[in-house]
Amino acid sequence: MINAAGREIPDQIIRDTGKEVFSGAYDNLGREIKKFSSKSRSVQIRKGAQPESKLLSSLDEVIDRIGLKDGMTVSFHHHMRNGDEVVNQVMEAIARKGIRNIHVAASGLFRCHEPLVQMIEDGVIRKITVSTISPGPLAKAITNGKLKELAVFMSHGGRPRAIESGELHIDVAFISAPCCDVQGNMNGVCGKSACGVLSYAYVDAEYADQVVAVTDNLVEFPACPIEISQEKVDYVVQVERIGNPEGISFGPTKPTTDPENLKIADMTAQLLDETGYIKEGMSMQTGAGGTSIAVAAAVGNIMREKKITGSFASGGITSYFVEMLKEGLFKGLLDVQCFDSVAIESRRENPKHMAMSASQYANPNTKGCLVNQLDIMILGATEIDVNFNVNVVTGSNGVILSSSGGNNDCAAGAKIAVVVTNLIKRGMCVLRDAVTTVVTPGETVDVLVCEYGIAVNPGRKDLMEKLKNTSLPVMDIREIKKLGDRDAVKVMNPEFTDKIVGIVEYRDGTIIDVVRKPVQEF
Amino acid sequence: MINAAGREIPDQIIRDTGKEVFSGAYDNLGREIKKFSSKSRSVQIRKGAQPESKLLSSLDEVIDRIGLKDGMTVSFHHHMRNGDEVVNQVMEAIARKGIRNIHVAASGLFRCHEPLVQMIEDGVIRKITVSTISPGPLAKAITNGKLKELAVFMSHGGRPRAIESGELHIDVAFISAPCCDVQGNMNGVCGKSACGVLSYAYVDAEYADQVVAVTDNLVEFPACPIEISQEKVDYVVQVERIGNPEGISFGPTKPTTDPENLKIADMTAQLLDETGYIKEGMSMQTGAGGTSIAVAAAVGNIMREKKITGSFASGGITSYFVEMLKEGLFKGLLDVQCFDSVAIESRRENPKHMAMSASQYANPNTKGCLVNQLDIMILGATEIDVNFNVNVVTGSNGVILSSSGGNNDCAAGAKIAVVVTNLIKRGMCVLRDAVTTVVTPGETVDVLVCEYGIAVNPGRKDLMEKLKNTSLPVMDIREIKKLGDRDAVKVMNPEFTDKIVGIVEYRDGTIIDVVRKPVQEF
Repeated sequence: MINAAGREIPDQIIRDTGKEVFSGAYDNLGREIKKFSSKSRSVQIRKGAQPESKLLSSLDEVIDRIGLKDGMTVSFHHHMRNGDEVVNQVMEAIARKGIRNIHVAASGLFRCHEPLVQMIEDGVIRKITVSTISPGPLAKAITNGKLKELAVFMSHGGRPRAIESGELHIDVAFISAPCCDVQGNMNGVCGKSACGVLSYAYVDAEYADQVVAVTDNLVEFPACPIEISQEKVDYVVQVERIGNPEGISFGPTKPTTDPENLKIADMTAQLLDETGYIKEGMSMQTGAGGTSIAVAAAVGNIMREKKITGSFASGGITSYFVEMLKEGLFKGLLDVQCFDSVAIESRRENPKHMAMSASQYANPNTKGCLVNQLDIMILGATEIDVNFNVNVVTGSNGVILSSSGGNNDCAAGAKIAVVVTNLIKRGMCVLRDAVTTVVTPGETVDVLVCEYGIAVNPGRKDLMEKLKNTSLPVMDIREIKKLGDRDAVKVMNPEFTDKIVGIVEYRDGTIIDVVRKPVQEF
Repeated sequence: MINAAGREIPDQIIRDTGKEVFSGAYDNLGREIKKFSSKSRSVQIRKGAQPESKLLSSLDEVIDRIGLKDGMTVSFHHHMRNGDEVVNQVMEAIARKGIRNIHVAASGLFRCHEPLVQMIEDGVIRKITVSTISPGPLAKAITNGKLKELAVFMSHGGRPRAIESGELHIDVAFISAPCCDVQGNMNGVCGKSACGVLSYAYVDAEYADQVVAVTDNLVEFPACPIEISQEKVDYVVQVERIGNPEGISFGPTKPTTDPENLKIADMTAQLLDETGYIKEGMSMQTGAGGTSIAVAAAVGNIMREKKITGSFASGGITSYFVEMLKEGLFKGLLDVQCFDSVAIESRRENPKHMAMSASQYANPNTKGCLVNQLDIMILGATEIDVNFNVNVVTGSNGVILSSSGGNNDCAAGAKIAVVVTNLIKRGMCVLRDAVTTVVTPGETVDVLVCEYGIAVNPGRKDLMEKLKNTSLPVMDIREIKKLGDRDAVKVMNPEFTDKIVGIVEYRDGTIIDVVRKPVQEF
């Protein structure tokens, strides 16, 4: 059937997954929610005796002790990003035991997780559920349909929603802990592999049947500060290294110096100013790219000029927002993911740099998550279409490049969600009649800013009105598309097979789109 | 039937409550636990629109909006202790609305809550569940059988266990918030009514159907640091005052100067030293009384002398433990309750002074709570008996004086649990053939230290052995009783009616004893 984003979702997929299809960005809200009845276990103690130690000697022992077996779902968090070494170590230990058909439910997977490709081929991994994924061999393997089961792309808010509701049931959560004690109290700010916050793992610790802390920094009790606490942790295991913190930060973490991108950033800041969003008490979130940071920089300049103090910046935190906090441009940072070492240090040292859970950040089934309070959201996109639908999962050639991240969460919540992108990338126009994959529905996306000009979602007549008498180059989105199509040197119209390799869940758990295997092999 | 603590639990009570009877301190451990499937609600948002405000104008509006009605269970936390003004304000608002038959499930109630007595008489309150209660009019009213239903006395660890399991279902949690923002992010450390931690309320915020933050200090978003976060909070209401922080600290908070009590304290410290519990990495918890603090002081002296560094001190935290932390005698404090302004300030300023949830502290149905790691626990008692059973709920005259607190939690977990008390109190010997009410089973209590000497639980032959060649006056507990009985100027053998006014739950939720209405009216 055709869903509310205009995408064909085959009946077979609906039947197989048991999921509903997307029916509108704000359609499944305002409801009473029952949370999943999770498991715990009471520890046997005896007077005068030490309770059984949680500290096991190896991942092999962990796997034996927890009874990890064929078909189970294991989860991971991704705060070590491309430096993570826990996913590979755990999965290799599982593979060595001859265990098969594992469902890997990771908040994120990166290029460093290439060894999973072979495990997919070998039948060790049958399914992947993920909210962030890097381009690379693993993403290509999924694109090529190597997984036995559908990959599931969830948003950062959709993941805790799915776990809390029981839709995504985790048998064993492996939590990388840069600092941990023998009881399983842990934090992300101390130790050689400090990654800042452990936010995405909080929900795993709460709802997984069994929870294992994997650490390379076993400290004396009590680990301080306690970020995830002992009563949720079954076992602790020490490994030589949980990862390389240098892999946390990659890509640009400074404002762009490219003149075209700077122009886009400046236009965006002016747009936000003219529409009244740069105001006392404002809040803001951007991604970590060079243009996004340049937008933050340009907004910061206007804030300084007008002596405006914002409320908070949120999401993945870069050094740039740390500096803005220090300068007093924001009153607080709400952090689900530290993007660089400056952010990690700030989280450790500055009480105004606060951790938040993924639920607090973006879970739509809560009594109010943070994205609902966002004024300004700067969105990335691999493609956008004339209906303002945004794609971040696939490229125009159909290959998987990323996952939903917080894109559709923040777009839904923010007062103004602005897609900031070059119109022409690698010779192609990324503004299309229809995106290859819909991740963020157009009804939640307010503005497109690119080097050719600005397009405002026709649903936002209020913004149109405010921009009427400004110098900003506001155009119809179709006019911008014409210019892009004119100047593009390459047109990509990939052919797809009938094979569906993954589903994209909207944050509420409905299917907003499917990912088809392209004819071309990647 | 007779339970494992030797107490007669009438069949009618077992049938009416549907509970099991106490079968041994370590009997219901080592089991798999299913947690209660709690409720949430998804907030309706719309693009560009502010979500509906959580901030309501009055408690009356709160009560209307949440649909609070006859028979419901409302919960409170007790960190403002005898300075609390939220319980009375909320219950008065409920009474004004004509709502009846409320179950008040408070982590603690104090003398300041005397107005509840009239509400019991008026039928506004039908039942009270409590973990801490002060002597006074309310405790007397319960003793006199004024409640329509049985009062339930739970331990600090039993309460989160009962809430997590669904045995204690809370319709509405009212959380006193010394610092709160309009979204419901809150903490206990800032504001004119700062009380330190909000530990006992965490489980209420997690499991209550509806959660209301009651604050006298509404701060700009985001409240910093966030202790309980917004996605768990339905409504926020501002009142003039949530309480008087001067009521937090009462009774002695310094070491006793009474020579007899100092002697008890010194004997206790020597006992702990001779039995090897004062050692590198040790942990310790005491109550807030003058003798308890004197024990901490005496232990501190031995630690200094022997250059011993402990691991942690826990529980309700007084200035005395704050000083020990500062001095480096402990590596950290794990706090469920600040007992004075010095502790509150320490929690605000010192990262090593950490908050813990009641579950992390003492919930037996978790993957390992802190009391399991306690080396030394100094227990209070209103009575103890020759089988080492401890009473903290009733006096020897049958009147309710307190509730379980952490007494049976810590006794069960600690390597050595020592009851420290004067043998003769108000002319009576508090060492009896059988305590009036069993709260903490004798099998978990290791030693009694009083001014007449020391009695070791016969189950602890290892301790006996270690004390054999010391100067400490170790005696059979029955010998000590003889001395006490000889010197007592008063004997109390109160008569009880058949009416049962309350049950004492062991930390695992089984009935360890019942509280009967005395013939004498209080």
